Amino acid sequence: MAVYTDVTDDDLEAFMAQYDLGSVLAFKGIAEGVENSNYLLQTDYGNFILTLYEKRVNPAELPFFLGLMEHLAEQGFLCPTPIQGRDGASLRELCGKKAAVISFMEGLSPRNIMPYHCHGLGQVLAQMHVAGAAFPMRRPNNLSIGGWRGLIAAVGDQADTVELGLSKLLHDEIAFLETHWPTNLEVGTIHADLFPDNVFFRGHDVSGVIDFYFACTDALAYDLAICINAWCFDAQNHFEPERAAEMVTAYQSVRPLSEDEKAAMPVLARGAALRFLLTRSYDWLNRQPGAFVQPKDPREYMEKLRFHQSVTGPWAYGL
Amino acid sequence: MAVYTDVTDDDLEAFMAQYDLGSVLAFKGIAEGVENSNYLLQTDYGNFILTLYEKRVNPAELPFFLGLMEHLAEQGFLCPTPIQGRDGASLRELCGKKAAVISFMEGLSPRNIMPYHCHGLGQVLAQMHVAGAAFPMRRPNNLSIGGWRGLIAAVGDQADTVELGLSKLLHDEIAFLETHWPTNLEVGTIHADLFPDNVFFRGHDVSGVIDFYFACTDALAYDLAICINAWCFDAQNHFEPERAAEMVTAYQSVRPLSEDEKAAMPVLARGAALRFLLTRSYDWLNRQPGAFVQPKDPREYMEKLRFHQSVTGPWAYGL
Repeated sequence: MAVYTDVTDDDLEAFMAQYDLGSVLAFKGIAEGVENSNYLLQTDYGNFILTLYEKRVNPAELPFFLGLMEHLAEQGFLCPTPIQGRDGASLRELCGKKAAVISFMEGLSPRNIMPYHCHGLGQVLAQMHVAGAAFPMRRPNNLSIGGWRGLIAAVGDQADTVELGLSKLLHDEIAFLETHWPTNLEVGTIHADLFPDNVFFRGHDVSGVIDFYFACTDALAYDLAICINAWCFDAQNHFEPERAAEMVTAYQSVRPLSEDEKAAMPVLARGAALRFLLTRSYDWLNRQPGAFVQPKDPREYMEKLRFHQSVTGPWAYGL
Repeated sequence: MAVYTDVTDDDLEAFMAQYDLGSVLAFKGIAEGVENSNYLLQTDYGNFILTLYEKRVNPAELPFFLGLMEHLAEQGFLCPTPIQGRDGASLRELCGKKAAVISFMEGLSPRNIMPYHCHGLGQVLAQMHVAGAAFPMRRPNNLSIGGWRGLIAAVGDQADTVELGLSKLLHDEIAFLETHWPTNLEVGTIHADLFPDNVFFRGHDVSGVIDFYFACTDALAYDLAICINAWCFDAQNHFEPERAAEMVTAYQSVRPLSEDEKAAMPVLARGAALRFLLTRSYDWLNRQPGAFVQPKDPREYMEKLRFHQSVTGPWAYGL
């Protein structure tokens, strides 16, 4: 939920003069996306999203994110397409910040996750992995195994103020994962943040996937492990095996997992839980009083991590 | 900027089943309106606004607000129309709160106010006063002269923590206004909060007026005095006579002011400045650390009030 930059009517008029999108009929800040400012932009040609990239996004990485959306949309994948201005560029500046107009995705994010949502998600995740195979750009995942020790250091001594025992949990887990993290899995372009907020449905069908600003080059199966964490637990953080079974079955109907990927899933799921536990703990400990965005409770991912630690094999996830 | 209530897809589906608006294509919280939660609702029939009425709106007053919008829109005035459900009702409940779907107004709120904005505003304000004349419902203005002593008491001893001298200014001003407040002016339905945020333009023309949740029955000229405060000062709180002249001239081209209304304008302008000074001081002193809505600085209205105190006659406003 983020609208950080105040765009005046004059700023907007000058900006839109660079596009062939007709005149602006409406412009409203919307409560979507945490890292950037997003605006509904209605023109003579319909609805669009105007995104202003705020400080947490590295401008040097924007060509990767916009290029990926363009590539995936060209392959028929249901994601926003960056709109080019008259000069052919889709990335420009507004109010001193990098900005882009992207196409508007219809649909609603699910709140009460049902197995059919997980089925739809599994299918589009695999479609995205297939469609992304030919994408030539690469971006390392700085929030994977190589980045976690740095995050643990950043969370530091404060960890136990989140919950007693968190510090030990983090140190034990990173030691385990550094020993067991797989290196033999197929690598490709992953979304890396495919939470229900970022997936729109119309009825039982996925109508769009948004927010590619964590996308990177990493093991494809790790993306599925992130989704198992994000979609397959109930509101009390209890694992829902039916949801996971729907998700992995639908995924495999498009892209079958290798035996190595299946075998690695419990470790990948632990890693994905640790990744969100670490960033949420950091954001929690560094929250500003009065900040616009309320950080999410990291303890949710402590419970998810403990579940994955208890798993005895990939069958727990329906594999 | 307010999105307070989390509406799930299931809640929304059940709610929308009561309307003939086709299926929901998109639903996004928007950063518009301070008192309520507003959502962009896109259906097969186009864009709408879904408003959830939060705790600062008295549910008993909603029929007045919605009835006024309906009345004005029927007269051809450019404001949202409440959409009726299949049962003919426009006011219903969602997530335990009163809710309504209203039509979507195109246009952009001006940020850099130009004299032509004030011209357009003056014209539509008068049009609204004319169109509202036959509206049969009444709602007393509890934020006018009769309510200010109560607000001064609520601000209390803390006033001088906003700025030294505020307490004396408030007490002197209410004493003056209670002696000089006019009682012989034409009364009708006023908007009472017609700030630039609540007026949309397309080019030089007003395309819509929104947010009728302070509307009430009071002196029509007082509404103009509020607009002089809200539109006719620059960013340093210096009065801009050209803006006021455009506004009052355009207003009078639709509804000429009586001699009594003209003569009362300096006192009405002082009263309007006091009203916003009081509510902003109260909100400032009672702000919550971490609150979603940042209160506006009350000192802006101390400066505006001091300007109006220095005025020697209605000519200062172009009258």
